[in-house]
Amino acid sequence: MTNRLDEFREYRDRMNERIGEIDHLGIKRFFNLDTAAYRDQALDGKTKELLGLVASAVLRCNDCVDYHLGQCVEAGWSDAELFDALNVALVVGGSIVIPHLRHAVETIDLLRAEEGAAE
Amino acid sequence: MTNRLDEFREYRDRMNERIGEIDHLGIKRFFNLDTAAYRDQALDGKTKELLGLVASAVLRCNDCVDYHLGQCVEAGWSDAELFDALNVALVVGGSIVIPHLRHAVETIDLLRAEEGAAE
Amino acid sequence: MTNRLDEFREYRDRMNERIGEIDHLGIKRFFNLDTAAYRDQALDGKTKELLGLVASAVLRCNDCVDYHLGQCVEAGWSDAELFDALNVALVVGGSIVIPHLRHAVETIDLLRAEEGAAE
Amino acid sequence: MTNRLDEFREYRDRMNERIGEIDHLGIKRFFNLDTAAYRDQALDGKTKELLGLVASAVLRCNDCVDYHLGQCVEAGWSDAELFDALNVALVVGGSIVIPHLRHAVETIDLLRAEEGAAE
Amino acid sequence: MTNRLDEFREYRDRMNERIGEIDHLGIKRFFNLDTAAYRDQALDGKTKELLGLVASAVLRCNDCVDYHLGQCVEAGWSDAELFDALNVALVVGGSIVIPHLRHAVETIDLLRAEEGAAE
Amino acid sequence: MTNRLDEFREYRDRMNERIGEIDHLGIKRFFNLDTAAYRDQALDGKTKELLGLVASAVLRCNDCVDYHLGQCVEAGWSDAELFDALNVALVVGGSIVIPHLRHAVETIDLLRAEEGAAE
Repeated sequence: MTNRLDEFREYRDRMNERIGEIDHLGIKRFFNLDTAAYRDQALDGKTKELLGLVASAVLRCNDCVDYHLGQCVEAGWSDAELFDALNVALVVGGSIVIPHLRHAVETIDLLRAEEGAAE
Repeated sequence: MTNRLDEFREYRDRMNERIGEIDHLGIKRFFNLDTAAYRDQALDGKTKELLGLVASAVLRCNDCVDYHLGQCVEAGWSDAELFDALNVALVVGGSIVIPHLRHAVETIDLLRAEEGAAE
Repeated sequence: MTNRLDEFREYRDRMNERIGEIDHLGIKRFFNLDTAAYRDQALDGKTKELLGLVASAVLRCNDCVDYHLGQCVEAGWSDAELFDALNVALVVGGSIVIPHLRHAVETIDLLRAEEGAAE
Repeated sequence: MTNRLDEFREYRDRMNERIGEIDHLGIKRFFNLDTAAYRDQALDGKTKELLGLVASAVLRCNDCVDYHLGQCVEAGWSDAELFDALNVALVVGGSIVIPHLRHAVETIDLLRAEEGAAE
Repeated sequence: MTNRLDEFREYRDRMNERIGEIDHLGIKRFFNLDTAAYRDQALDGKTKELLGLVASAVLRCNDCVDYHLGQCVEAGWSDAELFDALNVALVVGGSIVIPHLRHAVETIDLLRAEEGAAE
Repeated sequence: MTNRLDEFREYRDRMNERIGEIDHLGIKRFFNLDTAAYRDQALDGKTKELLGLVASAVLRCNDCVDYHLGQCVEAGWSDAELFDALNVALVVGGSIVIPHLRHAVETIDLLRAEEGAAE
């Protein structure tokens, strides 16, 4: 059974591949820079994924929220920690963030269900 | 000698006091909620100040950046860690964040100069 | 027959309940503060729902627009008054608001159809 | 003694005149449309100035906040009503609005001081 | 076979007609001003459609991106030129623009497929 | 006699140099990518500076507007063409862009005065 996360990942992979085919040097370098920003450096990658999540939430981008939640769950953040980070996003960004909070909580539940099914 | 950080803090304190006098229950509760969001909970306050910094940078609010940088320095984040967090903000938010990156780096230098003078 | 408003309300109720289960004190207090902001105080609740509508439209959040339109219709604003408020949002926010104006007008029509069916 | 409101008004008038000299038909028509949006229609102008204020606050534009506050005071809104409207903006837009709330409260005080001096 | 572009156009036409029926003078004049902004003047319409595309992309509005891409393709911009414009939007607006870049590239492919089918 | 453009350029150069000293690989690569985005490729650099100007105006960043206006004037765009581009930004972004339009027109006048003084 596919869910909206599977569909998002399939679409994301397919379009990233298509964007790669375009072969625009600037776009390719931007994608590399984006990936590199979340690697261990002065801050570890785990912390930076949480920064990416909160930035995505206050800028109100559901696809970005879903992507960073996947990374955050993989990096080992607990639900309580993710909710606490989303609370910062809610206070900074206001009630306009609430629809994205709903989306984020649903995504966390979907990600945990995947973990459960994988065990 | 006063600098722009001192002026910002003086203005911020004076206007927060004036807003307190207004005595609007909703506004007072919002300010309390804002303060509470950065306390140790599932995440520690130090991590949440860094989340507040990145949220402020991508939403492009210099006053908010200055406030959270002050908190981050007090919480013990190093320059290298702050620059690494600001790099995440830059990649997420794009070149439109650059003027705020300049402002943030100048603020970090002012904050470190204050630390040096205090020793 | 369900429409997109019914689906939105069902999703909104379900996820608000799920967010309540999370039991994060900050998030719960934010939701209470959000509800309280639209109660009769110095301004009456009817006027504040219109403020909420225009804020939602210029910030370009369809879910928020739908929620506040429901509240505005219940509070007794006429179509002509709602369109006049949306015109302010359009002028302040520019053509980027037009897709949300289309959405809002469709929502108003759905809400009026519900009123007609209820009589 | 001039204050920042006087300076803003002088700059605004001077640049609006300069923009008029440019004589771009689209820009001139936009300015007319902007003025017309706040006239009495289905909603009265007084209500629409309050909508303009909240839209300006959540979009975080101090010049726009100052302009609409001037119009709101002239239209007869009380301080308590303006603070209540700004509370809606704060809840919708989040803590990122706080620097603009500080600015708005200072502007209200300046406007009331002008009223006192005029009597 | 209909695709998402057909659905968007049908919805857009239907709701624009509905908005016309509302007969709000301000809204009607805004729509006229919007159309007029992309006509040949000091800049030709072709260049201005590209400006509209980049403005839509950095403000992250998929409907606006789709509309301006349709106009840009009709005006004769090549894929390579459109990708180069989207790269500017990506650098200015940051990784938060990436989901809209994916959407835009898919729309360009749909528009080119329509051109192929029309020949 | 210095003006605000001179001060902006001095500050921009000084802080860019300071950011270079930080020696963060990601930030350095972002600055390179930003510069590269406006070079002649499928689109010529002159057109891309105009895209950068409109993107900066709708995202409401005065420093970015000033930077791209300097580049646009150097690239040979006339006042009439710049005003026509700013009109697109005004229609897309709404009246919230007006304070930035005032700033942009003043900057254009300062840039032309520099050209006159240089002859």
